[in-house]
Amino acid sequence: MSQYRTFTAQDAVEYAKQFGGLDNPSSLVEAQEIGDGNLNLVFKIFDAQGVSRIIVKQALPYVRCVGESWPLTLDRARLEAQTLVEHYQHSPQHTVKIHHYDPELAVMVMEDLSSHKIWRGELISGVYYPQASRQLGEYLAHTLFHTSDFYLHPHAKKAQVAKYINPEMCEITEDLFFNDPYQIHERNNYPAELEADVAALRSDDQLKIAVASLKHRFFSQAEALLHGDIHSGSIFVAEDSLKAIDAEFGYYGPIGFDIGTAIGNLLLNFCGLPGHLGIRDAAAAREQRLTDIQELWNTFSERFQALATEKTRDAALSVPGYASQFLKKVWTDAIGFCGTELIRRSVGLSHVADIDTIKDDAMRHECLRHAITLGKALIVIADRIDSAEALVARVRQYS
Amino acid sequence: MSQYRTFTAQDAVEYAKQFGGLDNPSSLVEAQEIGDGNLNLVFKIFDAQGVSRIIVKQALPYVRCVGESWPLTLDRARLEAQTLVEHYQHSPQHTVKIHHYDPELAVMVMEDLSSHKIWRGELISGVYYPQASRQLGEYLAHTLFHTSDFYLHPHAKKAQVAKYINPEMCEITEDLFFNDPYQIHERNNYPAELEADVAALRSDDQLKIAVASLKHRFFSQAEALLHGDIHSGSIFVAEDSLKAIDAEFGYYGPIGFDIGTAIGNLLLNFCGLPGHLGIRDAAAAREQRLTDIQELWNTFSERFQALATEKTRDAALSVPGYASQFLKKVWTDAIGFCGTELIRRSVGLSHVADIDTIKDDAMRHECLRHAITLGKALIVIADRIDSAEALVARVRQYS
Repeated sequence: MSQYRTFTAQDAVEYAKQFGGLDNPSSLVEAQEIGDGNLNLVFKIFDAQGVSRIIVKQALPYVRCVGESWPLTLDRARLEAQTLVEHYQHSPQHTVKIHHYDPELAVMVMEDLSSHKIWRGELISGVYYPQASRQLGEYLAHTLFHTSDFYLHPHAKKAQVAKYINPEMCEITEDLFFNDPYQIHERNNYPAELEADVAALRSDDQLKIAVASLKHRFFSQAEALLHGDIHSGSIFVAEDSLKAIDAEFGYYGPIGFDIGTAIGNLLLNFCGLPGHLGIRDAAAAREQRLTDIQELWNTFSERFQALATEKTRDAALSVPGYASQFLKKVWTDAIGFCGTELIRRSVGLSHVADIDTIKDDAMRHECLRHAITLGKALIVIADRIDSAEALVARVRQYS
Repeated sequence: MSQYRTFTAQDAVEYAKQFGGLDNPSSLVEAQEIGDGNLNLVFKIFDAQGVSRIIVKQALPYVRCVGESWPLTLDRARLEAQTLVEHYQHSPQHTVKIHHYDPELAVMVMEDLSSHKIWRGELISGVYYPQASRQLGEYLAHTLFHTSDFYLHPHAKKAQVAKYINPEMCEITEDLFFNDPYQIHERNNYPAELEADVAALRSDDQLKIAVASLKHRFFSQAEALLHGDIHSGSIFVAEDSLKAIDAEFGYYGPIGFDIGTAIGNLLLNFCGLPGHLGIRDAAAAREQRLTDIQELWNTFSERFQALATEKTRDAALSVPGYASQFLKKVWTDAIGFCGTELIRRSVGLSHVADIDTIKDDAMRHECLRHAITLGKALIVIADRIDSAEALVARVRQYS
């Protein structure tokens, strides 16, 4: 059992030599800390030719941006590594490979993805990856189906639920998604110009009842091992490749949460595009996002349905027609969770670069307002939007 | 740590002296084994005056009726004791008191309820306890509310979910409620005269899809710490008193499962009454059952709502209007689960005395057929029955 200590660059190099699974570990010579988050150290480990070969990631026991004053469980490193290892089993093409992890050191050694770029940045720059949304749909279908009651033996499923209980990271989601934006809270973060829009959220009882129902589903519906934070900043893309990373929010929850988070971030990009691109380019990129959303859902639901038909092991759940009925429930959940993502990224603590990096204040505020309006509508009318095409029609209506 | 051994009567007396919490433990002199189930030893411990003072219950590591060939986890004694202890905290009036339990010996020492009778027997004999259904509603509201996301801190709730994971006992429910009656299975148990009715279940796709959805909810929706088997044989009654016992199926599941099991057993009694009482008495007792069902649900839902208004600690779930929306979901679930209870008690392994003790074959078959028909209807139209009064109207329609 190792004792936790914060890694230096040299520690990271030594650790990578030992646990990186490389043919020539002695070629590793130096490390560069590239973490731009504030929760983890992330070291790129280079060989003598200056080629980045492998990543060492270590969880910090506190939130770095506020010094050591906000402690955060190191157990999230175990949860992240185990979630990624589990997801890799079911979707090796689209999950970052974990070579090794140590729960005591809260450290993992993983595949270097220098050949890839973070999807969010590409989406903001207007670089289109036409395969990405389908690949994300495949990732979600494979990981969520194979960790669900359709596929797992009931004993194995229950053991998995216990293994992935993740109170501290879930609490962050519970607070940031479902509480803060609908009340006055010091963590909220929005320009004064939006005060009326945000105040309207706080006084909208119908909306708050729908949000309560979504939070209750997040609390109680253990449908599959979620990634838990599958936004476009947790996804690496390259030409014809997509890899999910950063799964420290992994837990057993409602499948619609992952779908809704993914779609929500495509819609946040949709909302922000006019702030980054010229009118014509923004319009074209927006159409790409709407296509992405349809392809994401349609790929996910078709693959999930196909897996259910082929591989469901539960006698009752295998009845023809049940998987497609369940997918309707997943879709309704997804629309609602998507709405909460739009709102919490506009009003709450943690924003997205798709909107926050827009320099023009008026434009940025307009994009934020757009996201809030759209999010609110989706939460309230979730059960009246019955397909990805209907969602796209609603998005056009609110644009 | 004690090593498991099967108790003799003398062991039970000694154990009761040590752990019964009696003022005068030395007064205990003898034990009588009264277990009529086949899973446990149940000893009544008597004092020198021949008064029964306390109960010692020990789980057997196998199902007794089939010798030692069908092993069953001893951990169910821990789960039963912990569920009852937890429920007692929230509803001391209506939960049997556990004085002591030992997970290694799979034994618990509990309150003697000789002054009470098993509700099922009284229901069959036509003895009416007009308070019982309201008391059961109170028990369910208090135990389920206080173990739910409305009341528990999210960390505590998640720890509870892990503590009460109950794979082996849940598997029994998963198989007997949701699989066996809808397929050909050696465990099924119904007279040849009902073959056509049972075959119709197996070929009813709409029904099987609805049952799949109920099973999926049983698998995945961790709403509260259920009793898990709250039928009228797990309930002791006396004038103005009701006590729940036998909670070895306790786990975190959908609240509607407990409600549906309770209502289902009142309906099974309703179906069986013409086999036990004369026409006029049976008709009167049937009206009592319908009143019981309405009082059970209305008491439960009003109390749950009142507790939610007063004591909800979750910021989002406390929004006015959410608890009543959630109770609609609970009700719909309950109707569906109630339907599965009616069917599995008529077709599956484990029947109820309300119907099985009817001596006249034709009458018994008619009652079984009634339960199957009613169960099937309730499962399929669950979401179109929006109140206890509407349920009663449907029951009359199918009688």
